[in-house]
Amino acid sequence: MLSARETLAFAHQLADSARSAILPYFRNAAQVENKSQTALFNPVTQADKAAETSMRALIARHRPDDAIIGEEFEDAAGTSGWTWVLDPIDGTSAFMAGTTTWGVLIGALHEGKPAIGIMDQPFTGERWASDATLAHWSRDGAPALALSTRTGVGLNDAMLATTDPYLFNAPERAIFERLQSASRLTRFGLDCTAYALLAQGHIDVVLESGLKIMDIAALIPIIEAAGGVVTDWEGNPNPLGGSVLAAGSPALHAEALALIRP
Amino acid sequence: MLSARETLAFAHQLADSARSAILPYFRNAAQVENKSQTALFNPVTQADKAAETSMRALIARHRPDDAIIGEEFEDAAGTSGWTWVLDPIDGTSAFMAGTTTWGVLIGALHEGKPAIGIMDQPFTGERWASDATLAHWSRDGAPALALSTRTGVGLNDAMLATTDPYLFNAPERAIFERLQSASRLTRFGLDCTAYALLAQGHIDVVLESGLKIMDIAALIPIIEAAGGVVTDWEGNPNPLGGSVLAAGSPALHAEALALIRP
Repeated sequence: MLSARETLAFAHQLADSARSAILPYFRNAAQVENKSQTALFNPVTQADKAAETSMRALIARHRPDDAIIGEEFEDAAGTSGWTWVLDPIDGTSAFMAGTTTWGVLIGALHEGKPAIGIMDQPFTGERWASDATLAHWSRDGAPALALSTRTGVGLNDAMLATTDPYLFNAPERAIFERLQSASRLTRFGLDCTAYALLAQGHIDVVLESGLKIMDIAALIPIIEAAGGVVTDWEGNPNPLGGSVLAAGSPALHAEALALIRP
Repeated sequence: MLSARETLAFAHQLADSARSAILPYFRNAAQVENKSQTALFNPVTQADKAAETSMRALIARHRPDDAIIGEEFEDAAGTSGWTWVLDPIDGTSAFMAGTTTWGVLIGALHEGKPAIGIMDQPFTGERWASDATLAHWSRDGAPALALSTRTGVGLNDAMLATTDPYLFNAPERAIFERLQSASRLTRFGLDCTAYALLAQGHIDVVLESGLKIMDIAALIPIIEAAGGVVTDWEGNPNPLGGSVLAAGSPALHAEALALIRP
């Protein structure tokens, strides 16, 4: 059976190939002749498909027995116990807006449990990666730094993040606003980068809802190996989609969860 | 009298010096021993002061007759007709959260009118610059690319941005939500980067209120030289603080303004 270490090494190859596939499309929307909404979506759709095609080709060649769940194409069954969860561009509207908060998410579940995760940001050259035991950040191939969350921070000193408060329905938004009132500062618009910066010790709490499995699977090992906690809004671990609460420490997670379910 | 071209060349030196002063502090908050809110603010405050000190020293040495309006220290009077408007870190909470949407804003007014602007992002190495005639983007000293806004986009196809919808008061927020409903997509959390990406043709409309002169002075020449329009919410040009509406074209600006003042 292939180890987590071997699987992470292979995941880095996938991230390299996705990075090369995506970069030519980034910030090229302005060159699109027809400015209709469909045309403006084209570069990100093309980049998404090019990256997923490239990653699936590598998996087919080197890990043919692994299953695949991807954003752009049909799921593929496997027999190895490993399932790849691929989101070539998490944050398509960020990509379209030219910001660098989007990322390539490459997760692998082992027997259904998040075991490997990479988030890559092709433009800044940053990469967050974990084999569920350790988590590291690196940039453009420079030596990797170990990630650890910020600890010893109460909610009243916390940096809270969510991508878009208008994505919450009314009861969810009331919960978010309770958490916001109790926190020190709130940041918006970060997509997957919010979770990566939580693992890196700069953001303390992330609250989101309506996630798909590919939005979060890769991030769970990174957050947990850095010392953070990620659950659904009921406190259940390994939230593979839906409502997610991530926090930098068990104590802070408990404090936030108590506000979610008063 | 010093020309706009000479003044922009000098502004690039200021940006280089601010970049060097700030980078050592970025993403170092996690190393702060005491996790209280005051301690967490320390790195950004230190970076802010170090950058402004360094820029003021260069101005004192090379342009002693220019006036200075800065975020961190007292205003200085001048006799040359040029006034520097310095915001060493626009987006302090973004800086604290470890995101790269903050920037160094260096503007110069000539006889009170925005004439020169630079926005620098030290971590990504990106720089947007204008002498009010042309606007350019460059990265890490690579050849500069001319900036131009996206044109031919109606509000229904537009990418709208604002940093934090909770910063609006109730009537302002109603206006924002009208614009949001009429737009194709909305992005949050971008600070000065929203205006830079508007000049670059990726974002179409930015709506904000409560700005200070140093939040916007440097961005006006960049937006205008790229083909955009920036006014207050009444449609008056050169909004040196307060409520700001920026759009990628005169037609789109008019369409947005009509929604602000129905």
